Amino acid sequence: MPTGQEKMETPGFAFEVLHRHGNARVGRLQTPHGEVETPAFVAVGTQASVKSLAPDDLEQVGTQIIFANTYHLYLRPGPEVVAELGGLHAFMQWHHPIMTDSGGFQVFSLGASIEQGVGKIASIFPDESPPSVPPRRKPTQGRSLVQVTDEGVWFRSHLDGSRHWFTPEIAVQVQRQLGADILLAFDECTSPLHDYEYTRQAMERTHRWALRSLEAFHASEPLHGFPQALYGIVQGGAYEELRRQSTRFIAQLPFDGFAIGGSLGRTKADMWHVLEWTVPHLPDHKPRHLLGIGEVADIFAAVARGVDTFDCVAPTRMARNAGLLARTLDGKPLPRFRINMRNARFRRDPRAPVEGCDCPTCRTYSRAYLHHLFRANELLAYRLATVHNLFFMNRLMAEIRAALQEGTFDVLKTHWLGS
Amino acid sequence: MPTGQEKMETPGFAFEVLHRHGNARVGRLQTPHGEVETPAFVAVGTQASVKSLAPDDLEQVGTQIIFANTYHLYLRPGPEVVAELGGLHAFMQWHHPIMTDSGGFQVFSLGASIEQGVGKIASIFPDESPPSVPPRRKPTQGRSLVQVTDEGVWFRSHLDGSRHWFTPEIAVQVQRQLGADILLAFDECTSPLHDYEYTRQAMERTHRWALRSLEAFHASEPLHGFPQALYGIVQGGAYEELRRQSTRFIAQLPFDGFAIGGSLGRTKADMWHVLEWTVPHLPDHKPRHLLGIGEVADIFAAVARGVDTFDCVAPTRMARNAGLLARTLDGKPLPRFRINMRNARFRRDPRAPVEGCDCPTCRTYSRAYLHHLFRANELLAYRLATVHNLFFMNRLMAEIRAALQEGTFDVLKTHWLGS
Repeated sequence: MPTGQEKMETPGFAFEVLHRHGNARVGRLQTPHGEVETPAFVAVGTQASVKSLAPDDLEQVGTQIIFANTYHLYLRPGPEVVAELGGLHAFMQWHHPIMTDSGGFQVFSLGASIEQGVGKIASIFPDESPPSVPPRRKPTQGRSLVQVTDEGVWFRSHLDGSRHWFTPEIAVQVQRQLGADILLAFDECTSPLHDYEYTRQAMERTHRWALRSLEAFHASEPLHGFPQALYGIVQGGAYEELRRQSTRFIAQLPFDGFAIGGSLGRTKADMWHVLEWTVPHLPDHKPRHLLGIGEVADIFAAVARGVDTFDCVAPTRMARNAGLLARTLDGKPLPRFRINMRNARFRRDPRAPVEGCDCPTCRTYSRAYLHHLFRANELLAYRLATVHNLFFMNRLMAEIRAALQEGTFDVLKTHWLGS
Repeated sequence: MPTGQEKMETPGFAFEVLHRHGNARVGRLQTPHGEVETPAFVAVGTQASVKSLAPDDLEQVGTQIIFANTYHLYLRPGPEVVAELGGLHAFMQWHHPIMTDSGGFQVFSLGASIEQGVGKIASIFPDESPPSVPPRRKPTQGRSLVQVTDEGVWFRSHLDGSRHWFTPEIAVQVQRQLGADILLAFDECTSPLHDYEYTRQAMERTHRWALRSLEAFHASEPLHGFPQALYGIVQGGAYEELRRQSTRFIAQLPFDGFAIGGSLGRTKADMWHVLEWTVPHLPDHKPRHLLGIGEVADIFAAVARGVDTFDCVAPTRMARNAGLLARTLDGKPLPRFRINMRNARFRRDPRAPVEGCDCPTCRTYSRAYLHHLFRANELLAYRLATVHNLFFMNRLMAEIRAALQEGTFDVLKTHWLGS
């Protein structure tokens, strides 16, 4: 039963649930840069470019909304540059909705992957104003240079090793400068390697940061002439007690929407559980985003549990590795939904890369040509494959929306995943 | 004074000189895949792809005709694959004119760059049917594995070192399979390192190969349902006597058009002389192509001397190295017609990459965004810069055609090159 259109917290945004099917819903998210029909896939444009595509390609494949990474853009070209150029929409000439993450995920994943000697750190410290609380290592982070305090995080650039200081307030400020429609609150992102105790501490810190993010958000103004919304992030790893606790805490805060972040466990079943402990307990009338998930089976599972939007690098990254997304190849199911265009069997194959696909690539080129372009390392290969994979994701989401409206979601799920 | 439309040797092709200005001319080349207004720049798509662009990009920037490389396509994906897929036009979905070279240039340049031990050569010989004349080294070729005989050439693949045998007959056959509109006769391409005597021998071999190319061309049929034309190639290095001799010999053969190949000397003046010894002595009513030339000053010099078409990798290669072609930057002349978009001065520059340029890139994006894309190694950078540079070349050629028609060629030349 539709709930009717609901204003989100921030004027200029609204979310309407149009249809329901169990916990799943079809919705419409209004933003200052247009509407997003949900469930929707959010294409990732890490460095203010969806790799190999121009904005008109994205429009052509039906992309409604893209995701850019605060960590990367903070380091290069720098938020002040993007702000001077009029924000991300003007900078990259994408005039539809944009989300930015808070930088948390990359700070903890990329920052943690840089290993250097301690002496070298010490030599850089003196020039910078230290945080109010002495930095300490995350216990499970090994030689990581990420140093978390309640105040914020020291991390190193993966580009040049330079040290940087991030806080919830800085993350809001940087995202104000970048100028996306939807911002995320700064969180501490934990991995399956973190134990219960550390995950609990990180979650509690994320909760304190959520309050500070909201405060910084309300104390600041958009810089680019349109309102911005702020989503909160639920953490707690794959621990039921923590996820339930985090959901209770984050859900009652006046965020415009909610994201599920951090570790979703090690198995599909772990992920389903995390979604069950979290999503149904978030406010029904606000949008829910699942961070970093984009496999076909995971999307069906998450939609069924009430998720509205997804971002994931997999479809675009796979494309650059010659992987085309498809349900079947020549009548045979593809369990991993992937065709490797470098495979020698395609060398002389005149057929469309994915027969029956209406994407600009499959309507125009043969398997033999795509195979040749990948073998010859031609730049056009990456674009043609990315066009196909994003078209595939957007088409899948459209099929899911239609099936939810027609009450045939389970039939569609069986069609894709088997019974 | 126009000469009126002239049929070329092959039905389906015609060349009409519309206007003259000294030795320069404005023309219209008719091919089975449409017309080419000359003087024209031929974009290079070595491996059946103009690097980073799709055919619709090429149309958008005004590209009339493209050039593909027989050597590369022979090695990968193989001419039989391109033939099975319906020829280059169908393979790469470019429905406008295409030229292919004969493979000669790459055989002698890429083939010569692979150096291996002599023992290793000997061990490979026995398995293959040797040419009728024993192979001998080109005297100035050093340790090259290119082995030229009057019969043909042994060369090695730059991809895997495998040995291959090319003759004028094979070059025609391969180009029949590739299915371009315009083919080139197989030639021995000499460099400025070759002395007079070797250049003379190579030229004479090229002349014998020209006769064999014509014979093979007439003894074979097009494979893809439309006629193909064959151009002859004038050789002779930078030696006046040889160039004049080669022009006399090649010009009297029933080729559809003529290309100037081989060494054009070491200086601009050398090139002007070679053009003066050759171009005006070619049949007036047939098209003339200058191989591998594409710098602005060279194009003005060659057009003035009667050249109709040019191919060159420079504009597209430069684009991939962040170089945008322009006459001026912010009012200041650019002597090398090049802007380096990686330059730090563009980091915050909101202006169009080349102000006043009507190309899709300059109409849409800022210098700051292009600078960011190049610094971040984003794939989109290569495409946006290539779009600009090919638009620039096509626009330059259009300005040259208009100036020739209006009698203002010298004014235009001064505008571009100074007095």
